[in-house]
Amino acid sequence: MADAIVPVEEIKAHSSENDCWIVVDDVVWDITDFVPSHPGGTDIIYRHAGHDASLAYSSVHSPSLIAKTLGAEKRKGKIDSETATDLLKPPPTEEAQPKLAVGAKPPLTTLINSYDFEAVAEKTLTKKAYAFYSSAATNLVTRDANRSMFDRIWFRPRLLRNIRDIDTSTKILGQGVKLPFFVSPSAMARLAHPDGELALARGCEKFGVAQCISTNASFTMAEITASVQPDSIPFFFQLYVNKDRAASEALLKDAERNGIKGVWFTIDGPVQGKREGDERVKVESATFAKAAMSGATATNDTKGGGLGRTMGGYIDATFSWEDIAWLRKATKLPIVAKGVQTAEDAVLAMEHGLDGIVISNHGGRNLDTSPPSLLTLMEIRCHHPQVFQHLEVYVDCGIRRGTDIVKALCLGAKAVGMGRPFLYSLTYGQEGVEHFIDIMKDELETTMRLLGITDLSQVHPKFLNTCDIDHLIPKSLESSFPEIGPSQLRAKL
Amino acid sequence: MADAIVPVEEIKAHSSENDCWIVVDDVVWDITDFVPSHPGGTDIIYRHAGHDASLAYSSVHSPSLIAKTLGAEKRKGKIDSETATDLLKPPPTEEAQPKLAVGAKPPLTTLINSYDFEAVAEKTLTKKAYAFYSSAATNLVTRDANRSMFDRIWFRPRLLRNIRDIDTSTKILGQGVKLPFFVSPSAMARLAHPDGELALARGCEKFGVAQCISTNASFTMAEITASVQPDSIPFFFQLYVNKDRAASEALLKDAERNGIKGVWFTIDGPVQGKREGDERVKVESATFAKAAMSGATATNDTKGGGLGRTMGGYIDATFSWEDIAWLRKATKLPIVAKGVQTAEDAVLAMEHGLDGIVISNHGGRNLDTSPPSLLTLMEIRCHHPQVFQHLEVYVDCGIRRGTDIVKALCLGAKAVGMGRPFLYSLTYGQEGVEHFIDIMKDELETTMRLLGITDLSQVHPKFLNTCDIDHLIPKSLESSFPEIGPSQLRAKL
Amino acid sequence: MADAIVPVEEIKAHSSENDCWIVVDDVVWDITDFVPSHPGGTDIIYRHAGHDASLAYSSVHSPSLIAKTLGAEKRKGKIDSETATDLLKPPPTEEAQPKLAVGAKPPLTTLINSYDFEAVAEKTLTKKAYAFYSSAATNLVTRDANRSMFDRIWFRPRLLRNIRDIDTSTKILGQGVKLPFFVSPSAMARLAHPDGELALARGCEKFGVAQCISTNASFTMAEITASVQPDSIPFFFQLYVNKDRAASEALLKDAERNGIKGVWFTIDGPVQGKREGDERVKVESATFAKAAMSGATATNDTKGGGLGRTMGGYIDATFSWEDIAWLRKATKLPIVAKGVQTAEDAVLAMEHGLDGIVISNHGGRNLDTSPPSLLTLMEIRCHHPQVFQHLEVYVDCGIRRGTDIVKALCLGAKAVGMGRPFLYSLTYGQEGVEHFIDIMKDELETTMRLLGITDLSQVHPKFLNTCDIDHLIPKSLESSFPEIGPSQLRAKL
Amino acid sequence: MADAIVPVEEIKAHSSENDCWIVVDDVVWDITDFVPSHPGGTDIIYRHAGHDASLAYSSVHSPSLIAKTLGAEKRKGKIDSETATDLLKPPPTEEAQPKLAVGAKPPLTTLINSYDFEAVAEKTLTKKAYAFYSSAATNLVTRDANRSMFDRIWFRPRLLRNIRDIDTSTKILGQGVKLPFFVSPSAMARLAHPDGELALARGCEKFGVAQCISTNASFTMAEITASVQPDSIPFFFQLYVNKDRAASEALLKDAERNGIKGVWFTIDGPVQGKREGDERVKVESATFAKAAMSGATATNDTKGGGLGRTMGGYIDATFSWEDIAWLRKATKLPIVAKGVQTAEDAVLAMEHGLDGIVISNHGGRNLDTSPPSLLTLMEIRCHHPQVFQHLEVYVDCGIRRGTDIVKALCLGAKAVGMGRPFLYSLTYGQEGVEHFIDIMKDELETTMRLLGITDLSQVHPKFLNTCDIDHLIPKSLESSFPEIGPSQLRAKL
Repeated sequence: MADAIVPVEEIKAHSSENDCWIVVDDVVWDITDFVPSHPGGTDIIYRHAGHDASLAYSSVHSPSLIAKTLGAEKRKGKIDSETATDLLKPPPTEEAQPKLAVGAKPPLTTLINSYDFEAVAEKTLTKKAYAFYSSAATNLVTRDANRSMFDRIWFRPRLLRNIRDIDTSTKILGQGVKLPFFVSPSAMARLAHPDGELALARGCEKFGVAQCISTNASFTMAEITASVQPDSIPFFFQLYVNKDRAASEALLKDAERNGIKGVWFTIDGPVQGKREGDERVKVESATFAKAAMSGATATNDTKGGGLGRTMGGYIDATFSWEDIAWLRKATKLPIVAKGVQTAEDAVLAMEHGLDGIVISNHGGRNLDTSPPSLLTLMEIRCHHPQVFQHLEVYVDCGIRRGTDIVKALCLGAKAVGMGRPFLYSLTYGQEGVEHFIDIMKDELETTMRLLGITDLSQVHPKFLNTCDIDHLIPKSLESSFPEIGPSQLRAKL
Repeated sequence: MADAIVPVEEIKAHSSENDCWIVVDDVVWDITDFVPSHPGGTDIIYRHAGHDASLAYSSVHSPSLIAKTLGAEKRKGKIDSETATDLLKPPPTEEAQPKLAVGAKPPLTTLINSYDFEAVAEKTLTKKAYAFYSSAATNLVTRDANRSMFDRIWFRPRLLRNIRDIDTSTKILGQGVKLPFFVSPSAMARLAHPDGELALARGCEKFGVAQCISTNASFTMAEITASVQPDSIPFFFQLYVNKDRAASEALLKDAERNGIKGVWFTIDGPVQGKREGDERVKVESATFAKAAMSGATATNDTKGGGLGRTMGGYIDATFSWEDIAWLRKATKLPIVAKGVQTAEDAVLAMEHGLDGIVISNHGGRNLDTSPPSLLTLMEIRCHHPQVFQHLEVYVDCGIRRGTDIVKALCLGAKAVGMGRPFLYSLTYGQEGVEHFIDIMKDELETTMRLLGITDLSQVHPKFLNTCDIDHLIPKSLESSFPEIGPSQLRAKL
Repeated sequence: MADAIVPVEEIKAHSSENDCWIVVDDVVWDITDFVPSHPGGTDIIYRHAGHDASLAYSSVHSPSLIAKTLGAEKRKGKIDSETATDLLKPPPTEEAQPKLAVGAKPPLTTLINSYDFEAVAEKTLTKKAYAFYSSAATNLVTRDANRSMFDRIWFRPRLLRNIRDIDTSTKILGQGVKLPFFVSPSAMARLAHPDGELALARGCEKFGVAQCISTNASFTMAEITASVQPDSIPFFFQLYVNKDRAASEALLKDAERNGIKGVWFTIDGPVQGKREGDERVKVESATFAKAAMSGATATNDTKGGGLGRTMGGYIDATFSWEDIAWLRKATKLPIVAKGVQTAEDAVLAMEHGLDGIVISNHGGRNLDTSPPSLLTLMEIRCHHPQVFQHLEVYVDCGIRRGTDIVKALCLGAKAVGMGRPFLYSLTYGQEGVEHFIDIMKDELETTMRLLGITDLSQVHPKFLNTCDIDHLIPKSLESSFPEIGPSQLRAKL
Repeated sequence: MADAIVPVEEIKAHSSENDCWIVVDDVVWDITDFVPSHPGGTDIIYRHAGHDASLAYSSVHSPSLIAKTLGAEKRKGKIDSETATDLLKPPPTEEAQPKLAVGAKPPLTTLINSYDFEAVAEKTLTKKAYAFYSSAATNLVTRDANRSMFDRIWFRPRLLRNIRDIDTSTKILGQGVKLPFFVSPSAMARLAHPDGELALARGCEKFGVAQCISTNASFTMAEITASVQPDSIPFFFQLYVNKDRAASEALLKDAERNGIKGVWFTIDGPVQGKREGDERVKVESATFAKAAMSGATATNDTKGGGLGRTMGGYIDATFSWEDIAWLRKATKLPIVAKGVQTAEDAVLAMEHGLDGIVISNHGGRNLDTSPPSLLTLMEIRCHHPQVFQHLEVYVDCGIRRGTDIVKALCLGAKAVGMGRPFLYSLTYGQEGVEHFIDIMKDELETTMRLLGITDLSQVHPKFLNTCDIDHLIPKSLESSFPEIGPSQLRAKL
């Protein structure tokens, strides 16, 4: 059916919370009903109510997503782009700023480690995008410790071994991969590059690396999985359980249809953390909107609430261990809990029959001073080694070097995930992703050789000296503090 | 009775230590007898002897205080303000400087944490006021450790729990509050804002937060308690015991009359510490006075002695545990000892039947390298857990984040106090106080959710990994050093 | 036989990988067959194919080396230097840059410790040479800890002893030396000074210091050993075992012929580490070559690969403990394994009948976070003290002070090696080497006197307080982590 | 007898090592025989041979010293100062430079702690003098740890005690003092102020503080002790034992004659350390002399050797425990060993019947990484508490705050010494010394009050929490490393 041409004046008339139209790529959509469940928050949409939102939309979403999400009945027609666009332009905001200094990027070949990519990203992403990716909760203690904890483990290299031929392959949930690291799920890869998750997938395909797709990806699962040769690499799907369970069930069916090999549901983000770097950017652009900030509790407050924080609105904060039965019923795929931070929860995951866990603190983005992933890994290994027999343990957060990967594997991890580093490499598109993987592969192989191992079946804690951090692992999982009995104060007062 | 008009010449004639008049808001007062017991020291008054002291007076005191303190018999009359004011102006001093850069304050909505308020305060308060608030004893070791010690405790977040609904309410000395933190008593809030403690009270009222009023408050208890709806929030009163016990008894009666809910008497400030930041400001302005500085021993020396130090003159340095009987007799209110720093003194407080203790080192302002409050809390919990059954334990010093609050509560604190952060928020008046409380409330709730708890009955040490600082708690309260017997040297020499 | 004059055009015609001539000091060489085994990599040679390579050659090699290596049959004739040189000049590269600021060197007498030499070297060496010497693996953790670990041991000085006369002499593999430190083998000393290893030898001769010659030395063993009086000091020879064992055997025979006293074969460099400082310099000059970088795996990649990395091409990555039998057969000289990093490998060295080990992590240049040498020394001393009875233990890496030397000796080392410090002193030629040794000798003697010892038989751990780092030594060489049994996951998936 | 007038030409003729005259304050001296035993080295004298040395002399020595030292027979006459002075001026050197920025000194009243004095000294002393005072051995580890170790002990303040009246008096070797700190012996106080040790004594007299006079003092014992009222304060005398024992015996008799109360002989400086700050200044001025530097071994080398190092030439490096019998015989005064650094040596001091020990590492000036004094104090207290019964223990090095003093006393020290802080205060002459003592007294009293003690009999380790550094004290004084038996290597080689 041919679209009607919608006059500019009519579009502008639908610009309230109760009646909200926007224009994306010349198509007019009635988005009123959808706004409350928008993962990116309501604020960013109301700012474009009755206007053209194409620029803001395309910086985070694939072109096909809006039609898939809203359905044909919300399509109100098209605009006459020749004459109408300028009239529909929203007030300029920081988000619409052209990326800075793109031409100033150094040649890809001069980047030789993951930190180089981060440095380039800081200079070339928009302020908003870099703040969203790089920020973490409050004092940044956990974010920084995620990294630094790795350098407090000494290797114990065993020399004079034949280490000519190296095999770095392994399996994740039974799926063969050529390297023991994967792309951690991250929201909105389009903020880094227009090809977003598609470029990530293509880069991974070349090196046999697995990719986990975020619920909040810029592209649809179908688009991402179709961007590479069938079965060339395993894809997993990260799930935030929706307050509307039917929506989650639909996503899970979608995952199965698209050949996804496992579901990784996030447990450490029932609400999102206070990422101040992100919030400051948001606060700065707050003059453009009547309610620029919305906090974790969804009230219109003035406490800050950046891009990260507003994304959590649809997440079900009541989801608990009892609800795993629902999840099992909703999908036939293997299920992995992402965000385990204690040995106790690892045991619960095992007892609930999960297929894997990702030790993660969300890159230090949610609860500051939550334990660095390496400590949690050691805690589980010390106190509940049986967990490793019953499910696969992955580690995420702070991995920046081949040495980090090998240390996590020696302590029992099956594979490790990287989030931010992949996003930073994506600023160069697919080519950047490939260069980054190649660097990490080289570091991994060099580490294995110099440590005296040639394949991943040989990893073992005996290759590590963890003495500098052993004291950080609780001797017992029971609290060492004595209990305090019931207070006798009330009687007295 | 109508005031007489006092001629300028007569006022100027009363300008010696033995005969000292000052003018405040056009009223002439004979202040000779009062000066020695002035909490702010004698020096600041003699500097204005025979002159108009309105500006210096109003920067720290409420208009009503002087009449209440001196009584009608010291009122000598009024001046003819039209013609006389200029002639009575004291020599200009640093204190009289207009506040700097007030117009440069960033919009309140751009402040998103307690550190932001501190940064603004540093830029906009007078040099003297900021020095008084921010300074601490000598090397600042305790001041800094108060904060940093919190970040050395890792959380142990338990996930997959229903954390949708959060309840942050608790009780302090049986009084209901909506949040487990309170305003610690701080002297002279008027240095931050003309509304001083009144604005603090009004901000607290909105959020159900308790306030403890300092002996050295800018406003009287009656003014502060009357500034909010009756019984809307609990007020407590901080007491420095006066050498003149009758004066303290009068204050305690005043407290009861004004509906105060408890007396918090300070035990860690029998003399005041050497706050060098404060002293340097004082030294700089010393050229205006013949004896600009007076040390802890009240001699006219040249060792420094800032605003903080000179305030201690009236405090009774002989007050000891035996004197608590007097205190019990002087008031029917619950009694809390503020400044406990060892498990032994916590036990003594319990044995003397006190109703609560505040673990505090005065913000690191008195004895440098006194233990960070968090360590004292852990020490009591480890060695004398029964204390928590017999009295309420509060923690003060170093609290800057919602995570800090939860950690203190998990270790057994009933509530925590904040002093400097409230004063810094006060630079924006009542609105600043409200914004600050709102921020702390949001951080607290987010921390609780991400930790897996929904009300304050669930706090427990099992949510903490204190391994990084456990070794700082003495294994035994007996010294681990062997005793050394009597010296045999004297016989020999 | 008189050389033919080779025309410029003919030389230029041989400039491909399959047919590669170069000119060195007016002589034309066919280097096609040799290139693949060039220790410095193929890239640097192909960059000069068909051109004059004299400048690049002489910056790292002695004039005689090329004839000795290639043999007469590869000598194609001479050029007419008067007319031809300019035409054969290669494109200018960073390597060809004149050394910077040579005239700006401070007078030698103003340098008073090893750090002073490093500071001068950083300013006066070519960027490439300084990067090659100073760089280390990835995050530089091991390089920095090598040094800093020494300062975490306190001395326990015993006073009131007669310490007037000091004897610093000892023996290394039975060879008398006057000082307990030696020149560690380092590649290409000519990068620091044209006299390279010859100046090192002459400086050592004056003070009775031993020198270990690198496989990759700028001069031949014959040239170096002939530069001093016969038997004036002991020389040792460092061996990288070649994939072509015959080549290694020839080197070993050469060593015996030249009066070498022991073979130190390197075990910690089967592949070379990722030295990013070095790689960045290489990457910068990559525009001059089609394949500027070659990684550890010898593919033409773009992952970086500096001077250090390209040198490892000929090293046998299959060499293992079983092959020591071959080594014993190939030489009658005492054999020392250089690069031991665990107590277990020290025991293996003992069990394989080696005569000594060098505890070394290659200056932190290979595997980052490999253990600082001091920790490995302590680990062996704690867990396998019998090793010290059966072989000599030397320590290399991080020695910068006389105090460092004494600490290593107190813990059981027979002598210590220094690499970079000698190279940095070499920037002043022989005179610099002598001044540097004199400084270290003075520091050593002063340390001995102030510690209360007068000769090296008195060294003992009782002179050290290692409490600050004792916890870094594993309590047991068995891993403290529980084993994890076989995974039961596969059956389930 | 009237002096002859010596012509300029004749003076200039005596300018060689074998025949060396100098002029001091218009008097001509033959100094040839004395030069080799000059505590300040030979170099500084030869630089003035045949010239007027008054300026250099007076910057470190009292006017009377030269006559006392050389005797009348070395006095050759006087010069005609009117005409001759200019002709005899030595070449200008750094030492002769006028003190910098003296006028820029801040008013004394603005200095409020010991660090302030150091900051002023750094700016106003000559480069040479500040380098001599402030420098310490090599990496400065011990110098800095001396200070920082104190801040790693937490107090355990006991509150609610009557602390109105404070008594800070104690006894040192039976001599009453009003404060438990003393002036540590330091060489050449005239570098700081012309009144040197006289001003120190007068300042001490006012506050009842003891002073220990250095062997290398600028003034004679007689001059210093006569500068105050008889018996107003106790003086002690620090002794470096001379190779020429008769010289030391003469000094000891001199001490008794001048009412000295005890002899503190230095045991930690048999040779002097490598103080690089000091040496760099010396190296810079080396162009003025043929042999500008002389090292610890007294050869003319080029390894550096600053003012500190050259002073050690006359010290007897053979002096050992056996020689204490000589010392006992040489004086009736109490004897204290200064420089004890281990519990073992403390026991030896006790067993040799000494009356006291000073725990000291010479301000970190001799052997770097020798243990901070606080650790040595704790080591003795832990392992040999009986020492404290048999002799008095003093602590020197790193004391900068009243809190430091109280900590040392709580651990068993009878009193503490300060060296550099007194010298820095001396830049303001006697007034500066008094102001400094007053500051330290105030800090001490404030600390005692806030800790809950009122006199020095109450100090006890229970007031300290040493948990942060307890692990630095060896568990046993026996080495924890296993012995290694005799080497079996020699037989094999």
